[in-house]
Amino acid sequence: MKLYDSGRAPNPRRVKIFLAEKGLSIPTEQVDMMAGAHRTPEYTAINPLQRMPALVLDDGTVITESVAICRYLEALHPQPPLFGTGALETALVEMWNRRCEINFLLVVANVFRHLHPAAKTLEVPQVPAWGEANKPRVLDFLRIFDDQLGKHRFAAGDTFSIADITALVAADFMKPARIEMPAEFANVRRWYAEVSARPSAGA
Amino acid sequence: MKLYDSGRAPNPRRVKIFLAEKGLSIPTEQVDMMAGAHRTPEYTAINPLQRMPALVLDDGTVITESVAICRYLEALHPQPPLFGTGALETALVEMWNRRCEINFLLVVANVFRHLHPAAKTLEVPQVPAWGEANKPRVLDFLRIFDDQLGKHRFAAGDTFSIADITALVAADFMKPARIEMPAEFANVRRWYAEVSARPSAGA
Repeated sequence: MKLYDSGRAPNPRRVKIFLAEKGLSIPTEQVDMMAGAHRTPEYTAINPLQRMPALVLDDGTVITESVAICRYLEALHPQPPLFGTGALETALVEMWNRRCEINFLLVVANVFRHLHPAAKTLEVPQVPAWGEANKPRVLDFLRIFDDQLGKHRFAAGDTFSIADITALVAADFMKPARIEMPAEFANVRRWYAEVSARPSAGA
Repeated sequence: MKLYDSGRAPNPRRVKIFLAEKGLSIPTEQVDMMAGAHRTPEYTAINPLQRMPALVLDDGTVITESVAICRYLEALHPQPPLFGTGALETALVEMWNRRCEINFLLVVANVFRHLHPAAKTLEVPQVPAWGEANKPRVLDFLRIFDDQLGKHRFAAGDTFSIADITALVAADFMKPARIEMPAEFANVRRWYAEVSARPSAGA
């Protein structure tokens, strides 16, 4: 098994935090996205969508999409469960993971990719007006997330899950996207301090 | 159990096709998104993100996000399996479902939401340059999807799955988004005719 990884890029990092939470280690190969290495014929043969990360199994089968890779690893190594257990908890973890992806990580990524000069080779064409339109949406989500974290210790409830991994990566990605975390979101700040202090956050 | 539904909107439709494939029926309540009914205090109390659909259980628990709802229904009614069976097939279904969401449905939705006059109350502000930037990405994905469908009968392999539901909804959404399906994608056209002919496609 080999993981195609790319430094501190958000999606590969989700898989690396997931692996650390499981106590697993997989050989990695670095693909330098800022240098366009994900668009070479070699990497395109692995993932025609030219997205990172990718997991290649020993028989050559390729699994892409961070959450698909994590779900595969969860099936092989169920402990500790990071996708929930039972029908309802599993659904609520999926719900919050998707909320954190679509309304937080993707939104922060849109701000970075469409406004940061360093992203101009990643996002072609950059549409600055779209980057600007996403900025208030980060705060819209944080308001809802703060309410959830006022009721629960973690993103999807009282157990750490993949939704916390997605949200942590999104929160950390606010820095390169140049978005400040407002002081008013006290529950988000309490949660962020806690999940950032886990050893897995170093991944 | 009650499903908050919205006519032919793509995401609620994914859940309705899923229900039809399972042979299930759930009471629905219509929320008219074009009239802004998903932004009322009543619906915001159900889903603070003001997105459709939502499933409300008999004890009042709310599950949002189409795929989270479908996964909950799959746990309750495993037959026929629409998320795959076994670790690898499940991962490949998730991979293709996400590819069809992120690189097809979301991209077509961006074209519709940022360019269609009827969407101007749904997407505020509309950013036409972002709509235009998404148009060629539909074709980029269809090229990859056509290759997959040249090797397999369905989106994620040789069994119908939730990935086909997502892709069917995206393909149908090309019409209001005013994107033509190019004749060159013969495998996509063969697949589209087959999945459109299933009774569930009427949902």
